[in-house]
Amino acid sequence: MTYGVIGTGGIGGFYGGILAKSGCDVHFLFHSEYEAAMEHGLIVNSCWGDFTINPINAYNSTASMPKCDVVLVAIKTTAQNRLADMLKPILKPDSTVVLIQNGLNMEKNLAALLPESVAIAGGMAYICVSRIAPAVIHHQDLGELTIGMHRGSDEKARELCRQLKCGGVKVAEICSDLNAHRWKKLLWNIPYNGLTVILKSTTDRLMNNEASAKLIYDIMLEIIGAAKACGVEIPISIADNLVEMTRHMKPYKTSMRLDYDNKRPMEIEYMYSEPIKEADAHGFIMAKTQVLEQQLKFIQNGYL
Amino acid sequence: MTYGVIGTGGIGGFYGGILAKSGCDVHFLFHSEYEAAMEHGLIVNSCWGDFTINPINAYNSTASMPKCDVVLVAIKTTAQNRLADMLKPILKPDSTVVLIQNGLNMEKNLAALLPESVAIAGGMAYICVSRIAPAVIHHQDLGELTIGMHRGSDEKARELCRQLKCGGVKVAEICSDLNAHRWKKLLWNIPYNGLTVILKSTTDRLMNNEASAKLIYDIMLEIIGAAKACGVEIPISIADNLVEMTRHMKPYKTSMRLDYDNKRPMEIEYMYSEPIKEADAHGFIMAKTQVLEQQLKFIQNGYL
Repeated sequence: MTYGVIGTGGIGGFYGGILAKSGCDVHFLFHSEYEAAMEHGLIVNSCWGDFTINPINAYNSTASMPKCDVVLVAIKTTAQNRLADMLKPILKPDSTVVLIQNGLNMEKNLAALLPESVAIAGGMAYICVSRIAPAVIHHQDLGELTIGMHRGSDEKARELCRQLKCGGVKVAEICSDLNAHRWKKLLWNIPYNGLTVILKSTTDRLMNNEASAKLIYDIMLEIIGAAKACGVEIPISIADNLVEMTRHMKPYKTSMRLDYDNKRPMEIEYMYSEPIKEADAHGFIMAKTQVLEQQLKFIQNGYL
Repeated sequence: MTYGVIGTGGIGGFYGGILAKSGCDVHFLFHSEYEAAMEHGLIVNSCWGDFTINPINAYNSTASMPKCDVVLVAIKTTAQNRLADMLKPILKPDSTVVLIQNGLNMEKNLAALLPESVAIAGGMAYICVSRIAPAVIHHQDLGELTIGMHRGSDEKARELCRQLKCGGVKVAEICSDLNAHRWKKLLWNIPYNGLTVILKSTTDRLMNNEASAKLIYDIMLEIIGAAKACGVEIPISIADNLVEMTRHMKPYKTSMRLDYDNKRPMEIEYMYSEPIKEADAHGFIMAKTQVLEQQLKFIQNGYL
């Protein structure tokens, strides 16, 4: 199988790197970091053991890449409107595209733009990983990957999971309900990403303050209500567990906070606006999440 | 009639200054600015014409003040828990206390601590005024004062209004429904005060951004809903008018933003928590206002 990685940042570099390290044929798309990748390869500093992919199959455009059986998409959703065009040169009629991204409805929106025969999946990565220098990534903690099919056969996705496990990922599995997992991931992403930016804070400071800890929990309850309206039951115990986990996590800047710090666009559309719209369409108003959405848009407007 | 002013900042200095200027017997309580007041009097730079009260009846404790027929209270509500004790030395059995403050339920809470014979009123000041140096205040715009009785006769409050009008205040009047006016004032105060602090902004920038302008309007609609649950009908046209007025106002730092900039406590309790509790007691959840409340508490915790 031929693998493609679209967006070799923290997530794409990590999972693609694991595949390449264990001998798979992996082709990486870089953007501004293409030169660095050609020079020193892809350097992965990982709490599971450091490794480097050098030489690396690096590209700066999908036009020059081979066609791929499985494509891992790990670009920010802020570039989602260009994704279908980027993918077209590397897709076979029966390729599987896995969107390892945060938010809601990315799969549905992409599906409308690609041939019916292309399988589309979503990937939920539970991992602390970030790009710390050009083509250098730092894997700090965790690493679990859950994949859910949006459409098509899960055959290639199963093979992907098998290869990742060979490469050392302890949990890489297929789930039966993508939508439920997307909402569960939002349960963490919506409060922590937004509030670390709006309140210029980190996860530990948010948890150590009574007011922000309560706000985070209240937002989680709202998300549970929205998910329920959309047909997804999330037990409150999952919110309790997430809060407890975050309380004991090392101080962490969320991906949105890193985007903000580096004056990059933030993933407001897929992480906030889409869930709000989806809940609204099912008769549930996400009043608190709307506040974060509008505050984030104001903040982004100030630097973009 | 003898007038007392408790808290000679922008609001207290302005209305007390107008009374003194027109010949009333006014006694001003200062805190840290007592020395400056004794030295150069109270200086009022006003868009209606500058004036100075010098010499001034200035005090640094209510223990040394004479008993007053009418007391204007213009301290921040953050000091509300000390107010009843501060007032006791200057109250006659039939005094009238007018709380020219922002928020909800200040009158009710104070009433429980003062003798039944003392009349208690609330004052809603529609004015842009701020303290710019010790015992120097700057009156930038507007000046309307509306007074509503919480309990007791409105006789002294009427006399106060008459004197203020003699002194040049175009509109100073008694209203029949204090609670309705308190909620109407919150309609502006809740969104603009909170968001200028949380988003580190000014009124003009909030109005010039589509997302924050929508957020402000959405919060206003929530407040209208809360007021309705509490028995107060506010037509949506009032929200429209406030938004339009603010859009055409000179760039303005709200009082909460000034408190934040000067690392003073913010009026979160009476401006956010009390309305939230009151609405909740009437079965209405102020979900968006709760977000602002908790964000403000987090921010305040960072500097107090």
